[in-house]
Amino acid sequence: MRYELYYWPGIQGRGEFVRLALEEGAADYVDVVRLPKAEGGGIETLFSMMQKAPSPAPFAPPFLKAGRVLVAQTANILAFLGPRLGLVPAAEAKQLAALQLSLTIADMVSEAHDTHHPTATSKTYEEQKPEAKKRARAFTHERIPKFFRYFERALKESGGRFFLGRSISYVDLSMFQLVSGLDWAFPKAMKRQRSEMPLLRDLADRVAARPRIAAYLASERRLPFNNDGIFRRYPELEATQR
Amino acid sequence: MRYELYYWPGIQGRGEFVRLALEEGAADYVDVVRLPKAEGGGIETLFSMMQKAPSPAPFAPPFLKAGRVLVAQTANILAFLGPRLGLVPAAEAKQLAALQLSLTIADMVSEAHDTHHPTATSKTYEEQKPEAKKRARAFTHERIPKFFRYFERALKESGGRFFLGRSISYVDLSMFQLVSGLDWAFPKAMKRQRSEMPLLRDLADRVAARPRIAAYLASERRLPFNNDGIFRRYPELEATQR
Repeated sequence: MRYELYYWPGIQGRGEFVRLALEEGAADYVDVVRLPKAEGGGIETLFSMMQKAPSPAPFAPPFLKAGRVLVAQTANILAFLGPRLGLVPAAEAKQLAALQLSLTIADMVSEAHDTHHPTATSKTYEEQKPEAKKRARAFTHERIPKFFRYFERALKESGGRFFLGRSISYVDLSMFQLVSGLDWAFPKAMKRQRSEMPLLRDLADRVAARPRIAAYLASERRLPFNNDGIFRRYPELEATQR
Repeated sequence: MRYELYYWPGIQGRGEFVRLALEEGAADYVDVVRLPKAEGGGIETLFSMMQKAPSPAPFAPPFLKAGRVLVAQTANILAFLGPRLGLVPAAEAKQLAALQLSLTIADMVSEAHDTHHPTATSKTYEEQKPEAKKRARAFTHERIPKFFRYFERALKESGGRFFLGRSISYVDLSMFQLVSGLDWAFPKAMKRQRSEMPLLRDLADRVAARPRIAAYLASERRLPFNNDGIFRRYPELEATQR
């Protein structure tokens, strides 16, 4: 099966959670929109695919084409890929647990997004800076501690190595991405939180060191973080913080 | 199977999406926290269940106990209940489509929540009114049209009766709840949108008229909308709008 990933070019964004699963799972995949135009890439491909997609069309990227199936919504794509790429245990209870954790990660990702877009996604960050400062303050001082305490406990209760027990799952890969993105966006808050999340830190390091992930991170396929994505570094959002 | 639903007492909130599925599916269920204290209800039951839940514990209510399984995250609970209550077709492609639509509904629900809490969930609406006005303006003028155009098209493409084709699914029930909640919270915006969502309007009416749902809505089990929930009616958020 050759998978086709469709996502905005130029950013990691939510597409990155899917890319990490495809990479760790050694899937045969194409990051379609990033192909040269002559090979079918480009932003027009993304828009035309969203228009002609079988119903229900995606509301937004990322979406994945797998043969005749087209799957949208990041957590749905991961739940679909998990069993196919060996990235989730076969037992239904484990798959439910994986989706539950994955959706909680997605909630935190949405909240991270809203730190730079608290009042309107249609306006730029610069147009909502005062509101962004308030939202970022609540995110770094309340939500980061709350979410990571929760995830740390869940990882501890599963034995401390991986979220679903003995082997890696797409949840562990997504956690690596969440931690990496927040390290980049909110370094001060993540430094404050560091001592309270030793197992999550160790997990993120172990994911980064896995041969396929390490090779991916060193490749041109891994885009750098930037201020067009979900995780953005605006130092002023942490300026008044220790 | 007797299902146990755990959710905040006193509000419809995200728990309502689960209640509607349990009601339409004629499930044997208990809304545990709303039971009298003497029968095991009360808010303490909710907190103690969250503490002693098998890993991964819920990050937040609602969660559902089904025998030894405990499932959290609304979309995950619905995806779990769907096949068990005959509220989703058996084909995998249909279940993926259902979860995709369900997650898009959940995204819109989160955005509706953020109209009254744009900068901090830990503060009251009254403490973030100016920001709430901005967020509500973007929600009513940009997001309501965008989401409902998308859902209207998806419903049309599936034949116009139900989102997944010939029979009702949990997606249709959730759409009823989304439309009802927004009618209550943002009556002006929903009136403006009305002519562009005839199929969704018809669907919401047909869901409300289904015998089990009608009986539920007329019962004391259905809590009224109120300003402690996700959908809140603050007329000032629409005051400057036609």
